[in-house]
Amino acid sequence: MAGQSSDYDPRTFKGLTFHDKRSAFADGSDTPSDYLERCLETVAEREPTVRAFASLNEETARAAAEASSKRWKAGKPLSPIDGMPIGIKDLLETRDMPTQMGCAALDGNFPKNDNAAVWALRQAGAVIFGKTVTAELGGNHPGPTTNPFDPARTPGGSSSGSAAAVASAMMPAAIGTQVGGSIIRPAAFCGNFALKPSQGGIHRGERQTTSMSTHGPHAACIEDMWQVAIEIANRTGGDPGHPGLTGPSTTPHPVRPERLIVLETEGWAKLDPDTVSAFEQLLEGLQRAGVTLLRRADHPWIESMEVSIANATEVCGTITAWENRWYQRNLVDRHPEGVSARTQATLSKAEKMTPDDYKRLLLEREHARTCFKALAPLADAAITLSCPGPAPIWAGDKPGEALAPRPTGDAVFNYGSSLLGAPVVTIPVMAVGGMPVGLQVMGQRNTDARITALARWIYENVEPVAVKAS
Amino acid sequence: MAGQSSDYDPRTFKGLTFHDKRSAFADGSDTPSDYLERCLETVAEREPTVRAFASLNEETARAAAEASSKRWKAGKPLSPIDGMPIGIKDLLETRDMPTQMGCAALDGNFPKNDNAAVWALRQAGAVIFGKTVTAELGGNHPGPTTNPFDPARTPGGSSSGSAAAVASAMMPAAIGTQVGGSIIRPAAFCGNFALKPSQGGIHRGERQTTSMSTHGPHAACIEDMWQVAIEIANRTGGDPGHPGLTGPSTTPHPVRPERLIVLETEGWAKLDPDTVSAFEQLLEGLQRAGVTLLRRADHPWIESMEVSIANATEVCGTITAWENRWYQRNLVDRHPEGVSARTQATLSKAEKMTPDDYKRLLLEREHARTCFKALAPLADAAITLSCPGPAPIWAGDKPGEALAPRPTGDAVFNYGSSLLGAPVVTIPVMAVGGMPVGLQVMGQRNTDARITALARWIYENVEPVAVKAS
Repeated sequence: MAGQSSDYDPRTFKGLTFHDKRSAFADGSDTPSDYLERCLETVAEREPTVRAFASLNEETARAAAEASSKRWKAGKPLSPIDGMPIGIKDLLETRDMPTQMGCAALDGNFPKNDNAAVWALRQAGAVIFGKTVTAELGGNHPGPTTNPFDPARTPGGSSSGSAAAVASAMMPAAIGTQVGGSIIRPAAFCGNFALKPSQGGIHRGERQTTSMSTHGPHAACIEDMWQVAIEIANRTGGDPGHPGLTGPSTTPHPVRPERLIVLETEGWAKLDPDTVSAFEQLLEGLQRAGVTLLRRADHPWIESMEVSIANATEVCGTITAWENRWYQRNLVDRHPEGVSARTQATLSKAEKMTPDDYKRLLLEREHARTCFKALAPLADAAITLSCPGPAPIWAGDKPGEALAPRPTGDAVFNYGSSLLGAPVVTIPVMAVGGMPVGLQVMGQRNTDARITALARWIYENVEPVAVKAS
Repeated sequence: MAGQSSDYDPRTFKGLTFHDKRSAFADGSDTPSDYLERCLETVAEREPTVRAFASLNEETARAAAEASSKRWKAGKPLSPIDGMPIGIKDLLETRDMPTQMGCAALDGNFPKNDNAAVWALRQAGAVIFGKTVTAELGGNHPGPTTNPFDPARTPGGSSSGSAAAVASAMMPAAIGTQVGGSIIRPAAFCGNFALKPSQGGIHRGERQTTSMSTHGPHAACIEDMWQVAIEIANRTGGDPGHPGLTGPSTTPHPVRPERLIVLETEGWAKLDPDTVSAFEQLLEGLQRAGVTLLRRADHPWIESMEVSIANATEVCGTITAWENRWYQRNLVDRHPEGVSARTQATLSKAEKMTPDDYKRLLLEREHARTCFKALAPLADAAITLSCPGPAPIWAGDKPGEALAPRPTGDAVFNYGSSLLGAPVVTIPVMAVGGMPVGLQVMGQRNTDARITALARWIYENVEPVAVKAS
């Protein structure tokens, strides 16, 4: 079953950027208010099909953009992202919009607080202009958002709206969150750049109850991606007890990798031939650019590390299910009809676990982290696909049939880095059958700036690959 | 200024215990319902002066006690604490009582969720029968609770109500929380046993936003203290990412310490001569019982560790103030008149910090942890006072004058162990001027069961000390 034909090509696609408008804001030839109006025009055009927004607050956004325009006019922007329209995944609290988490049980939930990242963005002058659709409670029960390159396909999840809004040029950047693959996978399906920071790198505010979740930016270019991340981190720091994302105040310069480890992960077995072909062509490009590639057969430590994450889907998913159980149990008890069967099935599984089951999984996680740390001296970073091919078709659950597995796509290439707490940047350097496929660059914990520099070099020096559907 | 005369003596004081009633529940000569009624009689008698409760839900408690009585009658108690009336510090959410955190801004706040620990206690059959008073938001702005041994004095804080309710025999155990000294100090001022678990040892449920907070039990005996802790941990496990409190399913047997490190901490300089005398007499008793004591002059590692925590009050307090700032900023923005000037002063100080200031404090904390780990092979545990003498008089702030510092007493002996994330048990083995003073037994991270065993041995083998006011 094929979706609507799409002609996405990473060699020519140009998304909506912000960093390159700053000189125009400074000289008065453009203003954040005008920028916002252009975004709103795109919203009017694309939103009926893309459905990226859970809430949209045009009035507040216009007021914020106007205040920003005055600051630029006065030569006193609060930061390089002053005036940038940004979407906030609807898991994070915002004082001026409800926080409904894609869950009927939370209809009308309006805590009137700002999440730490939202607070930081406002301090930096950003225009918070909408809450973006999340799969229910950040899990895998999908919301209404469609893939901007083919409405028959999922945009990925759970940061569905953030990924799709950026890809459809409704905004230059948006905040997503990831516990399994919820930033990197939708970004890859939608042709975004995105950063999943090191675990603890960006303060999660009220969202501290899972040990593998992160907040990170989606953007249409690596400059906006980094700038959003560092402006937040410079104001909030990391999670409680964590040093937090640290790096240059503007996007790190490109750094040429000497050696890269190519990871297969559990995902390798699930790849279609077209995606394998695209990835192998990209690897050839890296080699032509002088990068040495190391694979699992090349070094026993790499093999050990691959083995240590070979069960990452199960380990990562089960840890998170256990960690979510009180919140979800309380919610289901209060609103038995307000939580999807898909999410309730995950909860039921978690409630059969004991603390000792959880401790065993933490040991497996610790082992994988040890194996990954051992790779540090071998190479500059690890790379792998960001998703197992192009976004799949999603036609909805069929009444009377079992719930479809993975309606927002398979996070099989993302569980490994989530388990490791490792920073990951995805860059849009492949297309398969006219749909985006991302490349993941993964580093050691707290080297977020370094992998951004490496990812930037790859993006600027290796020809993207487009493979037609075979 | 002296308070009402109190004749507390740790050699004779007997609190309300639960573990020793189980055989009576089993043979039908007593029931949890009767036990609860006796508690409620004590509440009627003592509460008008002690003011330990923020909410009391007699109806729900009676129903829970009745259900428990039926289980005991059927020979099927859910756990050794089935039927135990337990108070919950009013920072933790409870589905059947409001959660107002001693803060006017949260008047009527009723989230109708159970905190993970509360959920676990209900699963174990415990009778959740009241929310206990906390200093505002777990800080140091006091609630109405008085010290059960002298109403002119503070019960300590922020777990004021939990400490006072147990000390006045209104309940056998209560849950407190600590980020600085909020479990151990009030327990020591009120003659309780209490466990501040290793950081991460007991799942904090929704309360995950600070890196040094813990949930732990107050009780009138070490058996009830341990049993409550392990029944929670066996059901919830630890915080996300932590292995959690692990140990025997009943109270660890006493273990004789071979060597103990006597820590001075910052608190030493603040001691009055009577408290020094009591502590030195207790140390003599330990030596008579054959325990070797090591002090800072005896080993350079101990000296290094003392130096590493010499600024713990400032480091611990500032880390926590920073970590609390978004929650408090959101609250103050919504309810400017609903948060005390004392708490707002702490917030203002935190808001002048940068993420780099915070990172510097994390480094100091990490250094202290390294120094403390080095002590592991030197001795079985470390001991020090749990509080700098008896609970001070608290007569309220005076209009027109600066806010009184430390109205719930000085946590100077507690910041060190909070900073270290170390498990601590306090035992009531001293009296000074007829008021309780506790001894703190502190161990390496995740040795909670071991230090409980050591504390039990000390309590059972060393004569408590009572010193008259000089």
